[in-house]
Amino acid sequence: MELKKAVGIKAADYIENGMVVGLGTGSTAYYFVEEVGRRMKEEGLDIVGVTTSIRTKEQAERLQIPLKSVDEVEYIDMTIDGADEISDDFHGIKGGGAAHLYEKIVANNSKKIIWIVDESKMVQKLGAFPLPIEVVKYGSQQLFKRFEEKGYQPSFRKNEDDTLYLTDEQNYIIDLHLGQIDYPIELEKELDKMTGVVEHGLFLNCVDTVLIGTSEEVIVKEVSR
Amino acid sequence: MELKKAVGIKAADYIENGMVVGLGTGSTAYYFVEEVGRRMKEEGLDIVGVTTSIRTKEQAERLQIPLKSVDEVEYIDMTIDGADEISDDFHGIKGGGAAHLYEKIVANNSKKIIWIVDESKMVQKLGAFPLPIEVVKYGSQQLFKRFEEKGYQPSFRKNEDDTLYLTDEQNYIIDLHLGQIDYPIELEKELDKMTGVVEHGLFLNCVDTVLIGTSEEVIVKEVSR
Repeated sequence: MELKKAVGIKAADYIENGMVVGLGTGSTAYYFVEEVGRRMKEEGLDIVGVTTSIRTKEQAERLQIPLKSVDEVEYIDMTIDGADEISDDFHGIKGGGAAHLYEKIVANNSKKIIWIVDESKMVQKLGAFPLPIEVVKYGSQQLFKRFEEKGYQPSFRKNEDDTLYLTDEQNYIIDLHLGQIDYPIELEKELDKMTGVVEHGLFLNCVDTVLIGTSEEVIVKEVSR
Repeated sequence: MELKKAVGIKAADYIENGMVVGLGTGSTAYYFVEEVGRRMKEEGLDIVGVTTSIRTKEQAERLQIPLKSVDEVEYIDMTIDGADEISDDFHGIKGGGAAHLYEKIVANNSKKIIWIVDESKMVQKLGAFPLPIEVVKYGSQQLFKRFEEKGYQPSFRKNEDDTLYLTDEQNYIIDLHLGQIDYPIELEKELDKMTGVVEHGLFLNCVDTVLIGTSEEVIVKEVSR
């Protein structure tokens, strides 16, 4: 937890007055958003936030961060968000918190994207973390069967009371247990094409900077594309 | 209207006892569903229907057609649905009735697909009919701008009272006024990849048989792939 907190606080250093800032979702982004709130209150930092989930919206409102919808801004200067896995070529899996649809919408409208993670999230290849797929309810059992046939080892995400988990958009999440993703770009194309898939958790070729919390320091990796 | 009715009634001839039948949406499919209801009542036809919209569900319930969800059947034997445009190589545009998401989900789980149209829908190339895109509300203004930049001449579909039209899934529809689509497969890939696009109205390489109502007769075209 201390690693997540350290990297979350460090990330807030990137935020400057006047920016429109995409506010990520998840346990690491949580500390970043808290620090933004602290800087606004104690240091007079002046920004507008664009949130990536109902959860983050509630947190930002509590911190009195002024918010706009992604549709109310021309563009987002910088989005800072967590990731569930980052490969050594800087592709990512997101959606462990089921917010990857809005996270991707916000990311696609951002000039700069920073991911903040603790070192446990850095992997050689993606896939040990289950790949979240947000799917339309109607036809979701058929999609599930198709994933099974492909050997993708799907599971519906559930709440603690065993009911099916619903996203902010009232869709289901199917998690794919792929083990190791050797061809993420091909997999992305396949998933993009599938009807009923609203969005998948593969975030390829999109991050600009990665901040990695380790027990010694926060490592900064600039990604060149 | 008589052409639509003639082809809708003719299509019902394809339905046999014991089939699971995908019931399309729209003004031509309406007559098909009515005729299925009549055959069940008067001729003892025994089928299970899978609907493609709330509208068709209501119609089928009124006709006392037994219904199952697409997720409650193993597969659909045959789906009979309308189309807004069919090119001479049998690609289609659907979604004038905003039901193309569920229509595509049902089509993807069907062994055989029949489209029923009047002759005005047959075109050399697609694109005179606006291409419907079902989009997530969040970020839809940004998607609209992107379509504008690409020269796709987008317009949000609206209700008569000028409010934005909502699909059965509570998403918006953006109609693209493309004029002529020279490369439908490339366009499909581009749209599949766009975040916030839930589903587009391009139905490529999926129809098996087309029934075309003309003033003289109903023409049957078998599509070989």
